[in-house]
Amino acid sequence: MNEMRINHLAVVVDDLDSALVFWRDGLGLPLGGREDVPAEAVEVAFLELENAHIELVRPADDESGVAKYLAKRGAGMHHVCIEVDDIHAKLKQLAEAGVELINETPRERDGRLYAFVHPKSTGGVLVELYQRSVA
Amino acid sequence: MNEMRINHLAVVVDDLDSALVFWRDGLGLPLGGREDVPAEAVEVAFLELENAHIELVRPADDESGVAKYLAKRGAGMHHVCIEVDDIHAKLKQLAEAGVELINETPRERDGRLYAFVHPKSTGGVLVELYQRSVA
Repeated sequence: MNEMRINHLAVVVDDLDSALVFWRDGLGLPLGGREDVPAEAVEVAFLELENAHIELVRPADDESGVAKYLAKRGAGMHHVCIEVDDIHAKLKQLAEAGVELINETPRERDGRLYAFVHPKSTGGVLVELYQRSVA
Repeated sequence: MNEMRINHLAVVVDDLDSALVFWRDGLGLPLGGREDVPAEAVEVAFLELENAHIELVRPADDESGVAKYLAKRGAGMHHVCIEVDDIHAKLKQLAEAGVELINETPRERDGRLYAFVHPKSTGGVLVELYQRSVA
């Protein structure tokens, strides 16, 4: 039984308005929200797809992880977030397979459990795992 | 009405087996297939999620576009593919919004219409559009 799904794809940009010309105006995705997140020093915009969403992230200062990513790598895809049924079991299974985890135990944000997997174990992709919400 | 969905996320890797340690063995995604594609000088592996798939791509020579991408950028996410209902209408809408297209008219592969959008218009993301299959 394959219960895993893409929740969102995060994209780091230097200008939200010019990115929205493609994602919202050109492609026609509904803008699900746009907000400042001072705690993380970013401004984010959410574009809704039928089965997932695109999260555009603009650094609001030069110090955050995404600001440094943008300075080093340029704009582009930052991470993919995959929902799993049991994040504790999945992290244990990953550790046993020899996968390098950034968060060995889940962290919590807005009531959601999450953990990041190191790109060196995934083929260069920063992967975020989400505990699937209970419906 | 939002009919668009993520079809797949393509990841360029230098070694399929080590990437599969994470995606298949650790995360537990079913391997939907693995094959050489001599026409494009790549080897690909498909991992199935509930709502999309991950496509791992390993260059088989040094000349292809993905080989050059790997040499320049390192392993990581290469493009995201989004299904649309009417690719001709969508490309027209994108052009009218001033979005730069790599393919101004759809190309065809295996009976599927597709077109790429230039990363400079999307916030650094290479976006592939797919004509949604008729069920």
